[in-house]
Amino acid sequence: MARSTEARRKALESAERLFRAQGYAATGLAQILAESGAPKGSFYFHFPGGKEQLAREVLAAYGARTEAWLRGLAEKHTGDPAGFVRALCRATAREMQTADWATGCLAQTLALELAPAHGEIADALAVVFAGWSAAIAAAIEPGGRPSAAARRRAMAVIAALEGARTLARATRSAMPFDAIAEELLSRGA
Amino acid sequence: MARSTEARRKALESAERLFRAQGYAATGLAQILAESGAPKGSFYFHFPGGKEQLAREVLAAYGARTEAWLRGLAEKHTGDPAGFVRALCRATAREMQTADWATGCLAQTLALELAPAHGEIADALAVVFAGWSAAIAAAIEPGGRPSAAARRRAMAVIAALEGARTLARATRSAMPFDAIAEELLSRGA
Repeated sequence: MARSTEARRKALESAERLFRAQGYAATGLAQILAESGAPKGSFYFHFPGGKEQLAREVLAAYGARTEAWLRGLAEKHTGDPAGFVRALCRATAREMQTADWATGCLAQTLALELAPAHGEIADALAVVFAGWSAAIAAAIEPGGRPSAAARRRAMAVIAALEGARTLARATRSAMPFDAIAEELLSRGA
Repeated sequence: MARSTEARRKALESAERLFRAQGYAATGLAQILAESGAPKGSFYFHFPGGKEQLAREVLAAYGARTEAWLRGLAEKHTGDPAGFVRALCRATAREMQTADWATGCLAQTLALELAPAHGEIADALAVVFAGWSAAIAAAIEPGGRPSAAARRRAMAVIAALEGARTLARATRSAMPFDAIAEELLSRGA
């Protein structure tokens, strides 16, 4: 049982790493199995829905982990929305730089490859982005339900970060993150 | 000769449409040939480098076409940087909505799937993004060489647009484009 749970965890980890680095379609089950060291039979025991099920589970875990991280970052910068936005841009740039610009946002990769044609994944992605957006809006405008303006601003922050990731992969530099931070902070928050 | 040029053009068109809708890896040569109606032999005559060569040529054409479009849009909004940015967000949202949110930016798709691992494509992407950035910077700050601030701002505009495309695919709505337009225009330009 412990070994079986371990196989499941390893498959999810390998899939997340590969999807983020090279995309969903480019990642075959064979490569996931090879990286995670799981035998094929055990894989289908855990993931009878195959690669699609794996994508849904990886996305749910990635979405929740990122949202929790955003809420933690917001807590560290309570009362300082500009500091929060700056830290968010810097942390994302650092994460990419550490991976030699070769790691993307899982949600973005799945959105570009599978949404909107794959309705179930598109719906799951909308939920993930809404969760991140709520966490960022709460950091920008703490206390109670964030205003429509704060929610719009949070969505713009996510868009800027996702786009900066795209540019950073091509330019292999943190410049896009500096550019969006400057832009987002230009009105002082 | 005319027929052969036609086959070449059709292959490029089909590849661009498929790459933008579903990504690079998900698009097999067989599907490109089926959509473009080109026989396999003729395809390899035009594209001895196969799918990679096709991607490079599609990217070069898409990059140049988009840059020309940006320069045309800038001309229409001479002296009105805010109007230019607003028109840019609206036009991109409209293009996606017309395609039921199923069409992405070719450069973004290739960046997420192939860069930075595929060095030649990453370099070509950096050139394309630099061209767009220069066109946007010139619209924001016309006359002579744009300042570092205008170039940074142009990069932030591209990042915001690419990210809004990602969110629009998942949420199947123009809201992300409204959000970034609001954010980008909040300082009045």
